[in-house]
Amino acid sequence: MTLMRTALGRRLRSHRETQRRTLRDVSSRARVSLGYLSEIERGQKEASSELLSSICGALDLELADLLAETSYDLRTPLGATDLLTGHPPGAPVLSSLDSLIAA
Amino acid sequence: MTLMRTALGRRLRSHRETQRRTLRDVSSRARVSLGYLSEIERGQKEASSELLSSICGALDLELADLLAETSYDLRTPLGATDLLTGHPPGAPVLSSLDSLIAA
Repeated sequence: MTLMRTALGRRLRSHRETQRRTLRDVSSRARVSLGYLSEIERGQKEASSELLSSICGALDLELADLLAETSYDLRTPLGATDLLTGHPPGAPVLSSLDSLIAA
Repeated sequence: MTLMRTALGRRLRSHRETQRRTLRDVSSRARVSLGYLSEIERGQKEASSELLSSICGALDLELADLLAETSYDLRTPLGATDLLTGHPPGAPVLSSLDSLIAA
């Protein structure tokens, strides 16, 4: 069972990477430390509702959209194609290339 | 701007009330204290992802559904009719009656 913070974190990272932005840029705009944002993206820390709103703001992303996408990901079997990026939910591009090369 | 915990809490309460279940019953099944569940429903406390999953389990509710509903609520102007209960998002029945009487 996927936890909410895991699914939310993957989506946040996916949006940041799609926008080709760094952890440094987004964390600075969201007024959160780079390390903490990284942990949130990896599902290792819970973001408070205030912080989540702030990160959404930094990504110019509606919280409602983030939750709808996260809901979609929770219904989608692992490995299914992500609507936003064309990659598995939250998977960074490099990991996808790595698995192709390894295959 | 509505915070995620506020919107989630309203929906959790809405589901519990629709099922005509008590805080005591749901908190017991979710293995959380009654007071803490009440605070979560009122948006006063953040539920960890693990606890949220546990509360969803106690309500026989999919997390993906809860997030989709919460996303819907965040897009819906305050006072719009709730799809699930026919009441404004999260509004208890008594409040609605009160406002009718006061009108």
